[in-house]
Amino acid sequence: MRAIELSFDGNQAGLKINDTAAVPVRKKGQLLIQVQAAAVNRTDLVAKETGNLPKGNPILGVEVSGTVVASESARFPCGTRVMGLVNGGGYAEYAVMNVGNAMPLSEQLTFEEGAAIPEVFLTAYQTLFWLGKLQATESVLIHAGASGVGTAAIQLAKQLTSAKIFVTASSSAKLELCQSLGVDVLINYHEEDFSQRIIQETLGQGVNVILDFIGASYWEKNLASIGTDGHLILIGILGGTIVQDVNLMTLLQKRITVSGTLLTPRSDAYKAELTKEFVAKTSELFAVSKLRPIIDAVFELEKAEEAQQYMASNKNKGKIILKVSN
Amino acid sequence: MRAIELSFDGNQAGLKINDTAAVPVRKKGQLLIQVQAAAVNRTDLVAKETGNLPKGNPILGVEVSGTVVASESARFPCGTRVMGLVNGGGYAEYAVMNVGNAMPLSEQLTFEEGAAIPEVFLTAYQTLFWLGKLQATESVLIHAGASGVGTAAIQLAKQLTSAKIFVTASSSAKLELCQSLGVDVLINYHEEDFSQRIIQETLGQGVNVILDFIGASYWEKNLASIGTDGHLILIGILGGTIVQDVNLMTLLQKRITVSGTLLTPRSDAYKAELTKEFVAKTSELFAVSKLRPIIDAVFELEKAEEAQQYMASNKNKGKIILKVSN
Repeated sequence: MRAIELSFDGNQAGLKINDTAAVPVRKKGQLLIQVQAAAVNRTDLVAKETGNLPKGNPILGVEVSGTVVASESARFPCGTRVMGLVNGGGYAEYAVMNVGNAMPLSEQLTFEEGAAIPEVFLTAYQTLFWLGKLQATESVLIHAGASGVGTAAIQLAKQLTSAKIFVTASSSAKLELCQSLGVDVLINYHEEDFSQRIIQETLGQGVNVILDFIGASYWEKNLASIGTDGHLILIGILGGTIVQDVNLMTLLQKRITVSGTLLTPRSDAYKAELTKEFVAKTSELFAVSKLRPIIDAVFELEKAEEAQQYMASNKNKGKIILKVSN
Repeated sequence: MRAIELSFDGNQAGLKINDTAAVPVRKKGQLLIQVQAAAVNRTDLVAKETGNLPKGNPILGVEVSGTVVASESARFPCGTRVMGLVNGGGYAEYAVMNVGNAMPLSEQLTFEEGAAIPEVFLTAYQTLFWLGKLQATESVLIHAGASGVGTAAIQLAKQLTSAKIFVTASSSAKLELCQSLGVDVLINYHEEDFSQRIIQETLGQGVNVILDFIGASYWEKNLASIGTDGHLILIGILGGTIVQDVNLMTLLQKRITVSGTLLTPRSDAYKAELTKEFVAKTSELFAVSKLRPIIDAVFELEKAEEAQQYMASNKNKGKIILKVSN
């Protein structure tokens, strides 16, 4: 089969097309999927940059949509349209997926849309509800609101709670997208200090939950923006890893919980439990388009390198998809 | 009544004995307690140092034991022996206590022992189980193992779980006390690097939960000692507030949750819920002496100043109690 693999030129890892990759062998408890679309994720870029093969698989890609072509599952027999996380191997014509990670793909959604759902919506669900403990009448600040996880988190917070939603983004175009999804307070971080705006909008109380992809450069402002008993969830560190002078007294006095998380390295059991709860809470909402994946661009599988460069440029609003032409 | 109050000489706060303090007025939902014993806590020292009156009460003290002398509670009628948290007002002959904070004091325990239980055992319970999510077969590192919260946490972990218990302390006498409570691994932090010992003892896996009273000076070693999905609970900062160079990548890669907490400023509802669960899980264990308060010293109420100085010197193993002679 055709697949996009990491290849090494000395210590430098790059992507190469392999037209004769082996179709993966389905094990017990797995589905073999004929992949129709896969999505590009930052974890794929990190793999290329560091040369570390996630789960040892030379084929990149952690989420796909497609059709089941080999299965022993009564719930997902051959011919079923599915989407879900995979342990690598997504940038390919065929991939294996644990049954516990598979989600039915509604007829209302295209395969490109299906590939745009698992990683960002599951991450958003996990961070908002499992880690952030967001309650119905609380408030949440979502940084990088126009990103894949950002747009998913906005929609989930909007549809599953009555929480007041704050976002930051870098441009009016990105903020318009956030507004269309139902955000209450839009903050262009180039034009104003987000923590001052949040303190003002919450009458000094701060928000209950913050989803942060930025890290070090936002640390002080995040702590100023968060309220008592708040949860700060770190899911990326695009703005640097080292924070100088962290004041632990603030953590104690505000009783703040800071959680670092990554979805990809977690266990299959964790992902399966998350997937199950997510499907129960959201499948109806996807079917009636109250939740919808946001796609920025679709590339052919063979253009994976360009797709990754596009993601690295931070210009996308929503997901970047690789379409597999069979 | 006689009470120990904060008094101000210019900006400098000190303790003074007031022989004509007003007996507090019991409100609906409260008990009036004839106090037999109160305990000294670090929060009292902070109040004296900063001159901030906790909850506006000039009388210090956040936990007492005694006898109910006015009540509308069927569960705690007049004459009942009780112990529990109070919102200030503990260093006195009488104090009011919310019914939700009251715990029955078993006949097997003295009033001095009763006053030694609420703050440290509730804090230890909250941090181990509500924040630290300690599971039966996990592992926990308890810093300052011979302190009030430390000795309570060791006993609760030992009696309510099968977790492997690590402690640090500064002397062999303190470590002997910890050993008598059932600790598995004793670490004298003056003699060895605790993180190296923990990495070695856990075969590189690290511990699941850390209870830390020290803060900044232990930050790096705590992060080295903690395992994947671990919980680091900060309940004090005796070792400094400012951490230089916090690496957020460690939080993400190990998926660490850091929670700052203080019990005293929390809401009455929170304390009542915690008290209720604590009583359900522990009252039998106190009655048969499987859990026991550790008392270091008992002072007369009038010697509150000396009692606080003794706490400030960090020499105590277990609680410092003020006994009220009626």
